[in-house]
Parts: sequence; structure tokens; C-alpha cells
Amino acid sequence: MRYDIAIVGSGPGGLSAAINAKIRNKSLILFGNENLSNKLEKAPEINNYLGFNEISGEDLIEKFKEHINSMGIEISKHKITNIYAMGDYFALMSGENMFEAKTVILATGVQYGKAIKGEEEYLGRGVGYCATCDAPLYKEKTVAVIGYNSEAEEEANFLNELASKTYFIPMYKNEGLMRGNNLDEAIEVINERPIEIKGETLVNQVAFKNLEIDVDGVFVIKDSASPKTLVPGLETEGSHVKVDINMKTNIPGCFACGDCAGKPYSYIKAAGQGQIAAINAVSYIDQLKLKEKNNN
Amino acid sequence: MRYDIAIVGSGPGGLSAAINAKIRNKSLILFGNENLSNKLEKAPEINNYLGFNEISGEDLIEKFKEHINSMGIEISKHKITNIYAMGDYFALMSGENMFEAKTVILATGVQYGKAIKGEEEYLGRGVGYCATCDAPLYKEKTVAVIGYNSEAEEEANFLNELASKTYFIPMYKNEGLMRGNNLDEAIEVINERPIEIKGETLVNQVAFKNLEIDVDGVFVIKDSASPKTLVPGLETEGSHVKVDINMKTNIPGCFACGDCAGKPYSYIKAAGQGQIAAINAVSYIDQLKLKEKNNN
Repeated sequence: MRYDIAIVGSGPGGLSAAINAKIRNKSLILFGNENLSNKLEKAPEINNYLGFNEISGEDLIEKFKEHINSMGIEISKHKITNIYAMGDYFALMSGENMFEAKTVILATGVQYGKAIKGEEEYLGRGVGYCATCDAPLYKEKTVAVIGYNSEAEEEANFLNELASKTYFIPMYKNEGLMRGNNLDEAIEVINERPIEIKGETLVNQVAFKNLEIDVDGVFVIKDSASPKTLVPGLETEGSHVKVDINMKTNIPGCFACGDCAGKPYSYIKAAGQGQIAAINAVSYIDQLKLKEKNNN
Repeated sequence: MRYDIAIVGSGPGGLSAAINAKIRNKSLILFGNENLSNKLEKAPEINNYLGFNEISGEDLIEKFKEHINSMGIEISKHKITNIYAMGDYFALMSGENMFEAKTVILATGVQYGKAIKGEEEYLGRGVGYCATCDAPLYKEKTVAVIGYNSEAEEEANFLNELASKTYFIPMYKNEGLMRGNNLDEAIEVINERPIEIKGETLVNQVAFKNLEIDVDGVFVIKDSASPKTLVPGLETEGSHVKVDINMKTNIPGCFACGDCAGKPYSYIKAAGQGQIAAINAVSYIDQLKLKEKNNN
């Protein structure tokens, strides 16, 4: 069977694409995880998804599950490792299995590199990847930002507006890191590699070789892996898939949405883009149909 | 007082911008209506806002109100008639009143022209402006599409996939309207001006000079008024504000989101864009601050 739309990723972007494809009467296959999204599952509190104030990630996942279940949308657990553009369709590879679809919507999120000791253990218990999402929890508290790129400086400045104390730990070449220029003067820079993120129930320390600092929260701001490895020929901008305002990539019939399509990394932005991607995928399929008809 | 962010419009785009600005600790003023959105208020059932399946427009408005109320966001009832870019700030005019803000987010929706008799009366009771939103209600039913532009042909094709019978009533110069090319062959074209949309509790007829057709629903697909009249110098594309993927317009500090920023006209797309607009407005304000600091 050749599906109309294959969606890779079951976060808010992929799910929103799926419900919109379903409403438009298109056949679809949705590849993802049972828990929908690791990132969302571990989010302690979300305030910026319009309609749900102060909701936990777990509760929002339940709402999303109810929505897709009531529409009869299922999640395929196959992990897609490569996607090939074959002209008028796509081949999606998962080990020995191959799936075919007329269009593909990438909603793969951002991939994080090798973790610091303790980072994964305390994810959602003081460790976060999204300052915009979690910063309000650290009002008048002490936070550390472990930054793998210069964009992390912006996140540190934002956190410092709320936190009583902010440490910035650059993990990248930072000769250009001028304090008081890009980085707020009140932020303390630690130019050492962290060895471990420590805690008990919650995070309480970041440990270096000869130093330990007390913190209430740690934000790890990382680069993502290139989506180019997933889809050969896909155009990217930095670590993100390059998309236009209609969520089109450079490959006809291939769309992207959510974190993999760029910042901000947030849930309702992903859901909005998923809808746009689905509606434009439907238009693309209708145009394909028209073309076939005119050729016959 | 000069606000950090002025938001014009209280639909999902404007509201999402407001909650994100608030989370980012920015001062804001939100101009809109008590019922938030006429369009949303009259939506009979919404299935494509991820997290809320089969919700009425009225119920979704209640969810939105709870969200903004719990954050202490208020709506100013002043109707903004003109917005002037003054360099490093904006002047927003409302009759004799003037408001100042460092940035502006336009979330004004689409404006509809002069209505056909019965159109406004039956809005939400069989008359709709968004095929994507309401089409599922007309499965196996009879619908008429009154189209003011050629984009309406696409909407008619989509409706016809679900409806048992579709009429298309072009209100524009349509020498180019080739049946079976852009428009599905099964759609019946009526080349006459409709005089009235009739009904009892719900819509049941469209009346022409010498003809009446029985219908279950009517979609009116119109052009919107130009946002250029609101913001002199604003660049548009057709009837929409021209924006990039960060929701920036051609005027620095001025952003747009939701229906006024282009299709699809749908709620979660608007909310996602509102979030993007707010986050980029915050970045813009931070850069302004930095510039002032460096000049002193």
C-alpha cells in the first residue's frame, strides 16, 4: 500500500499533522513512540499552550492521546532510519521493512548529543532543554546554563531576568564571549567542563574537577543532529531543516514541522506548523492527482 | 507609558502572543473584544486543535478565557484604527486616544466585505467561512460555495470529497474557470448572483433571481480587506501581511500572526504563530536595549 502521507515523529507537530490529514480524508501512517514524546513527558509544567494553563507534560500527553484515539489514528512503532525521494513517492526504510508514501512530513524533533553524567537521570527533575518552557519555575532561584553554542547566551540572559543567580558554562570556543555585551554582566561564567550533574530527588549541584556549585536547575542548550542523515539531499540551515512559511522543504512532497524545523522549541508552535504541513501535503497530493489525470 | 508589546486582535493568535509575552516578563497591551473572536464564537465544532477534540467554539473560548485570566491578562476594548511606525516605537491610534509600544503584533484576522442577505444571520447555523474547519459536518450533504476568488475552487474541490452534492457560485470574473481542470467535474457551477441565503433554524436554500437551490450548508470564500490601511507602509502579499518564518513583517518591530498572515485560516496555526511572533518581539526588544546601552 502507498500511503498519501507518512509522518515521522509523534510529538505535537506530528500529531497535529496526523489529525489534519485525517480530517482531510487522506490515508496516513504515523511513526512514533507509545509515550508520544520524551521531551513532553518530562515537562513539569506548561503554561504557553493556549487553552491549557499549568498543565503537566504527562497530562497534556493524555489529552493528545484522547484526541488521536477518538479519530482512530494509530502509531506505528517502526523506527525510520532513512527516507529516499523516488520522484513521485518516498521510500521510508526501517530495518528490513519499507514503507511507501506520496508525501512525507518530518516531525523528528531535535536530537541531543552525548549526555553529561546525571543529565538524563535528572531530566524533568531540575534538568531541562528549553528555557522558554521552564524558566518560570526558577524565579528567584539559582540556575546553571550549560551551553554548547552561542545561542545559549540568549537563553542565559532570559533566565537571568527571573533567576536570582545564573551561572553560564560555555562548552564551545568562546573567545568571542564578551561579558556585558552578549551576556548579561550579572551572569557568572565558569570556564570549566562540568563532570557531573548531582542531586537527590531533585538536582542540587553541578560538579567540576575542583569545584562544585549549588543550583536549583540546570539548562543544557545543545546542537541537534543533522536531519540530512535521515533524508539524503534535504537542505538544512544550521541544524534545522530549511522550510518556507508553508513548511515546504527543498524536496517536493517533503514537509517539516516542529523543533526540527527551527526555533522556538515549543509545543503549540509545533502543533500549528504540523497543521500547515498537513494542509500543504494535501494540496500537493491533489496536484499530483490532477497531473496524472491530465496525462491520461 | 510605553508598552513593550502591543497586540492587536484577541483571536487565538493574539491570545497566544499575549501569554508568551507575559511569560517572558514583558509589559503588554492586548486590544480585542470581550467575546475574543466572532469567528470562533460561531464555530459549531472544532476537531483540528490538538488536545481538544469535538469542542464547540464557545467552549474553546472559555478555555482561552480561563488561561488569560489566570495569568492576569486583560483585554482593552479600544478599537485601533491606525498604527504608525515612529522609528524605535509605534503609535497606535484609537479615536482621540494614542497608545505607545516598542513592538506591535498584528493578529487582526481577515475582514469580510459586504454580506449577502442572510449571510450574517446564518453564520454558524449553516453558513461558514472556513471549509477546512467545518467540512466534516457536511459529509453526504449538499453544500454551496460562494466564491469571491479563484482560491474558492480549491475549497469547493475539498468539500466535494465529502459532500454528496456541491454547487459552486463564482462571484468573480471566471472566464478561466475550466470545469474538470481546476474544478472537479462533479461540481455544479451556477453562473448567477445569489440574492439571499434562506433558512429557518438552519440554512436550507440559496435564492437567485429565477432559481432556488436546496442546501444544507453554504461556504462564503471572500477576500479580506488590506491590512495596509491599518499600518501605512506595511508590505502585503495579496490580502495578507507578508511575513517570514519568524513572523516578521517588512517593518522592524512589527510582527503578524494568524489569519491576517495567510492561510490556512485555522486556530492552532494562529496560536503557534502568535507564540513565534511574541518570542521574536522579545528578542527585538532585548536588542533595542543592548543598542541603547552601547550608545551610552
